[in-house]
Amino acid sequence: MSLLIRGIRELVTNDPAWGGGPLGLVADAAVVVEDGVFAWVGPAGQAPPADAVVDVGGAAAIPGFVDSHSHLVFAGDRVEEFTARMSSAPYRPGGIRSTVARTRAASDAELAGRAAGLVAEMTRSGTTTVEIKSGYGLTVGDEARACAIAGRLTDEVTFLGAHVAPPEYADDRDAYVDLVTGPMLQACAPHARWIDVFCEIGAFDAEQSLAVLKAGGQAGLGGRLHAAQLGPSAVIRPAIELGVASIDHCTFLSGRDVADLADSGTVATLLPGAEFCTRQPYPDARRLLDAGVTVALATDCNPGTSYTTSMPFCLALAVRELGMTPAEALWAATAGGAAALRRQDVGRVRVAARADLVVLDAPSHAHLMYRPGVDLVSHVYVKGSLKWSRSVK
Amino acid sequence: MSLLIRGIRELVTNDPAWGGGPLGLVADAAVVVEDGVFAWVGPAGQAPPADAVVDVGGAAAIPGFVDSHSHLVFAGDRVEEFTARMSSAPYRPGGIRSTVARTRAASDAELAGRAAGLVAEMTRSGTTTVEIKSGYGLTVGDEARACAIAGRLTDEVTFLGAHVAPPEYADDRDAYVDLVTGPMLQACAPHARWIDVFCEIGAFDAEQSLAVLKAGGQAGLGGRLHAAQLGPSAVIRPAIELGVASIDHCTFLSGRDVADLADSGTVATLLPGAEFCTRQPYPDARRLLDAGVTVALATDCNPGTSYTTSMPFCLALAVRELGMTPAEALWAATAGGAAALRRQDVGRVRVAARADLVVLDAPSHAHLMYRPGVDLVSHVYVKGSLKWSRSVK
Repeated sequence: MSLLIRGIRELVTNDPAWGGGPLGLVADAAVVVEDGVFAWVGPAGQAPPADAVVDVGGAAAIPGFVDSHSHLVFAGDRVEEFTARMSSAPYRPGGIRSTVARTRAASDAELAGRAAGLVAEMTRSGTTTVEIKSGYGLTVGDEARACAIAGRLTDEVTFLGAHVAPPEYADDRDAYVDLVTGPMLQACAPHARWIDVFCEIGAFDAEQSLAVLKAGGQAGLGGRLHAAQLGPSAVIRPAIELGVASIDHCTFLSGRDVADLADSGTVATLLPGAEFCTRQPYPDARRLLDAGVTVALATDCNPGTSYTTSMPFCLALAVRELGMTPAEALWAATAGGAAALRRQDVGRVRVAARADLVVLDAPSHAHLMYRPGVDLVSHVYVKGSLKWSRSVK
Repeated sequence: MSLLIRGIRELVTNDPAWGGGPLGLVADAAVVVEDGVFAWVGPAGQAPPADAVVDVGGAAAIPGFVDSHSHLVFAGDRVEEFTARMSSAPYRPGGIRSTVARTRAASDAELAGRAAGLVAEMTRSGTTTVEIKSGYGLTVGDEARACAIAGRLTDEVTFLGAHVAPPEYADDRDAYVDLVTGPMLQACAPHARWIDVFCEIGAFDAEQSLAVLKAGGQAGLGGRLHAAQLGPSAVIRPAIELGVASIDHCTFLSGRDVADLADSGTVATLLPGAEFCTRQPYPDARRLLDAGVTVALATDCNPGTSYTTSMPFCLALAVRELGMTPAEALWAATAGGAAALRRQDVGRVRVAARADLVVLDAPSHAHLMYRPGVDLVSHVYVKGSLKWSRSVK
C-alpha cells in the first residue's frame, strides 16, 4: 500500500543532491511512502501513481526531528528548584540526587507511563527519533529497569549509570565507577546501544569517565559523553580518540578541542534548553560550524535543567543565542542528530530512508524559528504512518 | 445553565484575598460558571451544586492570558528579513513599510482571514483577551479597514495610524501627523477604543507623538504608546501626564522615567518576543518591579519583529531574561495585561469576572516557565464556554 503525499510547497530533504545547500530544498514537492520508507522523492509534477493520496495544501515539510539527547525515565519534578534558581541560586549538579530518590521509589508502571507521556509530547512537536538515557536509578537494578523501560520506547537507549555518584557512594566515587563498569554494565548492556558519562566537576573526572567509556566499548556499547558544560575539560581529545559518537554540551571548549572535533568523526551536540533553564552561558555554535565541526541540536529533556521536549523551541534558541542560521539549526536537529546517533536511515528525506516526515502549518522551514513558541507541527508521519495530527476547531 | 469545573489542583485567581501573594492560589479548587461569568470560586469541597460538572483531573488552572499588545491585521510575512537579520543586520523600523505595501494590496477577506487565524492560534495557547492594533495601512481607508477588521475579533481595537510615516509622507512627517490626527482619526475612532503611536527615531518624535495622543483623547480614545524600545525617550513623563494606560517596550528608561511610572497609573508593558526576534537588549523587569511599577507582558505579535502568538513563550523569556519570578510573570500576563487595558472584568478568577479559564497539562502554574516550548494548554474556556481543547491521540 503506497501513499503519495503532495502539495508540499517546500520540502527539506537534507539531501544536497537537490541543490540549495545542505538542506536540499525541493519546491512544489511530493513523496511516496511504502513499507515504512520513502519510495520516491521529487517535484510533484513527476510523482508516480500511488494507492492513496494526501494533499497538504502548500505546507512546508521537513524530516522528523532526531532528538539525540534526553533523560526521560524519572519520577517527580523539580519545579521548586527551578523557581528558586530563577530567583537566585545558580545550577549545581547535585539536584540530580533528588530525582534519583524519587525514581528509585517509583513503580515500573509510573516510570513507564511518564516516559511514554514525554515521548508522546515529543511526537506532537515533530520528533520521530529519540535517544533516551538511564541515570536516575544508580543501582544495578534501578539502572537496568530504566534501560528496559527506555527500550520499549526507542532503539536508542543509553546506559548512563555514571550520571552522578549516588549518595551511598558520595565518599568513594572510584568504587562507584567499579560498580558502573562491572555489575551495572553487565545488567544494562543487553538493553542499551550506548554508554554515556557526565564528565564534570561534581560528577566524574576525565580518568573515571574514560574508564566508563572503555568498559562500555568492551561490552559492545558505543560511546557518548557529557562534557564542558560548566567549565573546561581535559577529556575531549581522549574521548575523540576512543571514538565517541558525540560530545554533548560543549560550551567551554579550547581552540584545540574545536580543532580536534573538526578533525574527527565525533559530533558536538548542543543543548540550548539547558542553558535557557539554568542561565548558564550558551555554547558558540558559530565557532564550531566555522571550524568544520558537525553540530547536532537536542533537547536534553530532563526534570532538573531542561524540562522541554520541544525541538522547535531549541531551534529558536539556537538561532537567537548560538549563532546558527535557520538552515544550520534545522540540519543540526535532523541530519545532525542522526549523525550523533550514527544513523543513516533517519534525519533525511530520500529513497530508502525511514519515512519520518513532519508537515508544518507554514510555507517554509524558517518559520519554525521566525515564529518562536508557536506550535506549527500539523502532521507527523513515522515510518510512513500518520502518528499525530493536530485537529483545529 | 451552570457549570462546575472541579479537580483543579492549583487555581491561580489573581485575587489576593486567597493569600499566597498576588496570584491568590487556591489548592484543590473549583469554579462555577454561569451566564459567561464566574458565579462561585473556592475550595472544591465547598462548591455549590451546578447543572453540569467537569473534572479536570488534578490539573492547574489560570485566568486566560490578556495579550495587551498585538498587530494582527497585515498581509505577507517577512521571513527573509528575519533570516537575514539572524545572519547579520540589526533591526531597523523601516521594514514595516514592506508590510504596509502588502497590506494595502490585500483584499478584506485575506486580511480578515489572516487575523482570525492568528487569534485562533492565540486561543490555542491560552489567550482569551487580545488587543489588536491597526498600523499597516497608513491611509485613511486602509487604517479604517484595519480597525473594522480588528473590531470583528476583539473589543480592544487600537488605532495606530502613527506606526511609521508611509513612503508618500517620508519627507513630511508633520503633514502625515496632520492626516493621522485629522481625517484618519475621524475615520478610525468609531471602530477603536485606543490610540497608539510609535515614538522612536525613524518613526515619530516626542512632540508628534504627544499631538497624536492628545487628538485621540479629544476623539474619546484612550492613549497607549510605543516608546524606549531602541533608545532613551523624552516622552515618558509627558505621556504619563496625559494619562496613557500603558507605555510599551520600556527598555531604555532613565531612573526618573522609572520613578514617574511608579508614581502613575500607567502600566509598563514588556514585549520580550520582540527582543528575542531582533536580538535587541531585553528590558529590565526586575528594576521596574522593585520600583513599584505595574508591569504587563504581551506578545507584540507582528510579522517583522515578534511573529509569536504565544504568551507561554513570552512568560518563559520573562523569567529567563527579564528577571521576573514565575509568579510575577504569570500575574503580568493576566492581571497585568488587564491593567494595561484598564479592564476589571478579565485577568482574574473571581465572582462576576468573565469566565475565561485555561486548564494546563501540569500540576502548577510554574510549569509554564519550567517547561518552555511545551504546549501545556489543554482546555480554554472563554465566557464560560469551552473554546478549545487539545485532543491527544
